[in-house]
Amino acid sequence: EISKELRQFIIDVISNNPGHLGASLGVVELTVALHFVFNAPEDKIVWDVGHQAYAHKILTGRRERFYTNRKYNGISGFPKMEESIYDAFGTGHSSTSISAALGMAIASGLTGNKTRQHIAVIGDGGMTGGMAFEALNHAGVSKTNLLVILNDNGIAIDENVGGLKEYLTDITTSRTYNKIKDDVWKMMSGMERARRIIQKIQNAVKVTLFRQTNIFEALGFRYFGPIDGHDIPRLVKVLEDLKNIPGPKLLHVITTKGKGLKQAEEQQTKYHAPGLFDPDTGETIESKVKSKFPTYQTVFGETILELASQDERIVGITPAMASGCSLNIMMAKLPQRTFDVGIAEQHAVTFSAGLASQGLIPFCNIYSTFMQRAFDQIIHDVALQKLPVVFCLDRAGLVGEDGATHHGAFDLSYLNLIPNVVISSPSNEEEFRNLMYTAMLYKKSPFFIRYPRGNGVLERWRTPFKLIEVGKGRQVRTGTDIAFITLGPICNVVYEVCSLLETNSYNCALYDMRFLKPIDKELLHEICKQFKYVITVEDGTITGGLGSAVIEFINDNNYITKVKRIGIPPDKFISHGCLSELHKECGFDIDGILKEALNLLRNINKENILKIAR
Amino acid sequence: EISKELRQFIIDVISNNPGHLGASLGVVELTVALHFVFNAPEDKIVWDVGHQAYAHKILTGRRERFYTNRKYNGISGFPKMEESIYDAFGTGHSSTSISAALGMAIASGLTGNKTRQHIAVIGDGGMTGGMAFEALNHAGVSKTNLLVILNDNGIAIDENVGGLKEYLTDITTSRTYNKIKDDVWKMMSGMERARRIIQKIQNAVKVTLFRQTNIFEALGFRYFGPIDGHDIPRLVKVLEDLKNIPGPKLLHVITTKGKGLKQAEEQQTKYHAPGLFDPDTGETIESKVKSKFPTYQTVFGETILELASQDERIVGITPAMASGCSLNIMMAKLPQRTFDVGIAEQHAVTFSAGLASQGLIPFCNIYSTFMQRAFDQIIHDVALQKLPVVFCLDRAGLVGEDGATHHGAFDLSYLNLIPNVVISSPSNEEEFRNLMYTAMLYKKSPFFIRYPRGNGVLERWRTPFKLIEVGKGRQVRTGTDIAFITLGPICNVVYEVCSLLETNSYNCALYDMRFLKPIDKELLHEICKQFKYVITVEDGTITGGLGSAVIEFINDNNYITKVKRIGIPPDKFISHGCLSELHKECGFDIDGILKEALNLLRNINKENILKIAR
Repeated sequence: EISKELRQFIIDVISNNPGHLGASLGVVELTVALHFVFNAPEDKIVWDVGHQAYAHKILTGRRERFYTNRKYNGISGFPKMEESIYDAFGTGHSSTSISAALGMAIASGLTGNKTRQHIAVIGDGGMTGGMAFEALNHAGVSKTNLLVILNDNGIAIDENVGGLKEYLTDITTSRTYNKIKDDVWKMMSGMERARRIIQKIQNAVKVTLFRQTNIFEALGFRYFGPIDGHDIPRLVKVLEDLKNIPGPKLLHVITTKGKGLKQAEEQQTKYHAPGLFDPDTGETIESKVKSKFPTYQTVFGETILELASQDERIVGITPAMASGCSLNIMMAKLPQRTFDVGIAEQHAVTFSAGLASQGLIPFCNIYSTFMQRAFDQIIHDVALQKLPVVFCLDRAGLVGEDGATHHGAFDLSYLNLIPNVVISSPSNEEEFRNLMYTAMLYKKSPFFIRYPRGNGVLERWRTPFKLIEVGKGRQVRTGTDIAFITLGPICNVVYEVCSLLETNSYNCALYDMRFLKPIDKELLHEICKQFKYVITVEDGTITGGLGSAVIEFINDNNYITKVKRIGIPPDKFISHGCLSELHKECGFDIDGILKEALNLLRNINKENILKIAR
Repeated sequence: EISKELRQFIIDVISNNPGHLGASLGVVELTVALHFVFNAPEDKIVWDVGHQAYAHKILTGRRERFYTNRKYNGISGFPKMEESIYDAFGTGHSSTSISAALGMAIASGLTGNKTRQHIAVIGDGGMTGGMAFEALNHAGVSKTNLLVILNDNGIAIDENVGGLKEYLTDITTSRTYNKIKDDVWKMMSGMERARRIIQKIQNAVKVTLFRQTNIFEALGFRYFGPIDGHDIPRLVKVLEDLKNIPGPKLLHVITTKGKGLKQAEEQQTKYHAPGLFDPDTGETIESKVKSKFPTYQTVFGETILELASQDERIVGITPAMASGCSLNIMMAKLPQRTFDVGIAEQHAVTFSAGLASQGLIPFCNIYSTFMQRAFDQIIHDVALQKLPVVFCLDRAGLVGEDGATHHGAFDLSYLNLIPNVVISSPSNEEEFRNLMYTAMLYKKSPFFIRYPRGNGVLERWRTPFKLIEVGKGRQVRTGTDIAFITLGPICNVVYEVCSLLETNSYNCALYDMRFLKPIDKELLHEICKQFKYVITVEDGTITGGLGSAVIEFINDNNYITKVKRIGIPPDKFISHGCLSELHKECGFDIDGILKEALNLLRNINKENILKIAR
């Protein structure tokens, strides 16, 4: 009854306040069973990735606020420690839950709490992330009271891939694993001769047949399942039993993503986060305000297919984001040259390095925030060896409703410190295409292209490819009062600001650097010779990004130009909300930039400081 | 014969030119067999971590230059693509080889090369790193021609740990795995009734009994072994056979680390990299120039034990570097509260976050260069949730002979961009102790302490603990001409420079910031009001580090002070060599700093620019 109610409530609310749907619908019964059997918040439940945790949130005091899910100042779409004591650990990125829950379990052991339960709920997709394996490897010898629940629905956002997935499918489909194991032994035990022989070889084989019969048991876990994750009585029974079994345990639960909503079960990728839909029929509702401009994602997908059709050396790589980044467009046409490697950013990067070492041209597409996972691989495997991998960083800058865990806030800064890399960002779709084209031909070093989620600004973007000179910026507007320096699509916002300033009789220049690295020194010399004040605007943290690079240039070249940096404020994680709200909070919406510019311009006038030319 | 010669040659050379010994001695036969069977460089051999590759280097044209191993301008201690076409992929950090070799294998497949072989040689230690699992998961369904050789010697630098290790031991020790599998089936097949039943259930069980009997087969690999890695005829036979078996294969090879040198076999951790030793007796030779000052590592080890003895909440975490970072001192006394999690930096960080979330005080010690692996976990699991984990970053700054893959060059920059963290570095051992003490009590956020490899500067360092005010720097020397600003032990070098400048009648101030974050703004205001020129000196890349923070402060607060940044030059990977040579190359040895200071001071005099006070 509760499950039915919960499911309907989720459907009702999410249908008109878009969020992640499929994952949460799939674990309704599991959530009810967990909260029935375990005593949260005393017992600790960690939800991997966390967008499966809607039922958990609703059951733990957030039903009334659930309509604010993912909204500015509303509750987060992910578990968040500061939001509720029931959220034992914040999640967002995949594969962290076992590590966190193991830490909690060991802490309980050390502090003498022998009754507390520690549960990590992780999907079969999350299980492919390397750190989940690292945690299993450690937990398997830890003897602590840890329960890992493998929520196996066979799908991440796209179809799950890899050896582990096939393995799990094998366990699940041939027959239920435990039953087979039991049957085999029962049958063999029933035979007299067999029994004698079994006795004899028992010691020798127990390791190979028992311990090694299962990948999780091989790592030291006790494995249970698979069981039906929608069967509450069974779940409750098994979870109750598991409470009393010491040591690390894994319960394999089979669920259906999108359970209970026909379309969500049938079109699992689309209904992962379907946007608006009719709660009664389940049909998605097309947004009425449809942009006439393509998304950067579409431009990526169409362009890589176009380039790959012309050059056989091009291959595409994604860690489990084929539909999100639109690499599925190439995948449909050139499946042999498109690789979804699972939730495995580290591997994706070094795998791309291996491909590049043999003369191929890999385009490795990873969301900015997830690329943090492969920071070491970028440095150690790609940049150090100057391997010409093209990295397309999707979802760079603020991403909106997904919030703090998902903003691509840091990439400019963490990439700029790495030697041997090109870092670029297009200001529109056409430039994006041309940067992809340029990157393909560059071949001297790794080449990063960062771009945001969402729509561009051009209707006619599919123009003939043109090379862009690497390390060259461009002047977008001339002016004499102050200069704006930008990188990426924020350039278009600043252009509007300049127009508004013009109506206030201020005449401001605008430069689009295009490349953070190599930065266009010639252009910066020109700017610094002409302007005493510069405003940099970037959709990223201002610590170590574009503004910092400009300030360092000014210092190193003995200019006196002063810089006002606008971007994501330093030392602050930005929460969730719609983009316009977040841009406003950070001060890089039109109003915010305008205000800063006017402040600066008025101060300049007040001080009556003249522009200098050296 | 070749193996014997190779082994002796390695012992002879490494005994008086220290390097990694044990790992390379362990794979001499394997290396000979590989180069006998495979046709490098056409076939691609990727050596994981790479310090096992000495025999490979000697066999592939570098015998004559092997005496320059790890020396400045000599050959690298790790495989390096630019050094030899036989080094198919550069390594240094662990667990990258399968990803790289898979990339190569898929590239060969796409370009129509059906005969090329692709081999990744990876240790049982390296196999615990998450990205190795990510690569196995992908490779298992790839159908490409990839051979993973699991070089199982049961040890990383310290004893290997975790579920996987126990599992491998089980395979290896109970009996040889394949034999058991064969025997069981042979015996069972011999029985009439059993055979009938087996026929009946064959389809159902083949998955569970065959596919699942081995963790690697579960992931889609064909598993072979374990075989004796010192038996060349057997190795050659098996490798020849494997050449003709398509698809992903794993050969499990058992080797003895340090093979052929008694002490190295018996004391594997000590002889991982033993320093000087007698090539005949194998006894290590104590360095004659022994420092009277302790290493920072010893200070860490002794201090954490001291703190942990006083506060039960303190726990120690290391990813496979217990002896390297001296956490083994605590481990010996408080084994229940010390965790070696294997080569698993990502897990180490999030596991620490889990511990901290329950009120424990984890000291997580990770080498600066390896912390790059856990960059995302620091942001996402620790900083975002403000969990009070104490991170001790060992081997920060240039490390010397290990070279480009191992320098802790980037940590100040990649940490400074993260909100909610404290970043500190002590200038001597006593300060290190006090920072550890301060960090333990701080509790408000993650707290980083970075410190270098090697000796400190104080004989009497074990003084009573004193709190250090977080975010407070200190003036070390007064002066009026220019100011030096430093962070970390480099302060001591700059102090000497100041003394030398004094003999040249220059009077320079010296400030030790102690904290990069929060940076001491009060002190910086003081400095900028007083000095028109500042020199920052840091043992790290100058992009985004201390110097950048000072420049940003100056810009944001409208000072006109100019900054000369000294540190690791931007956009350059520093190679290997002894520390003094590398410091000289980067310009932050005494001479280099002195030269820069004199240049600056003379220019100031020339321009006759007066110090300003605002």
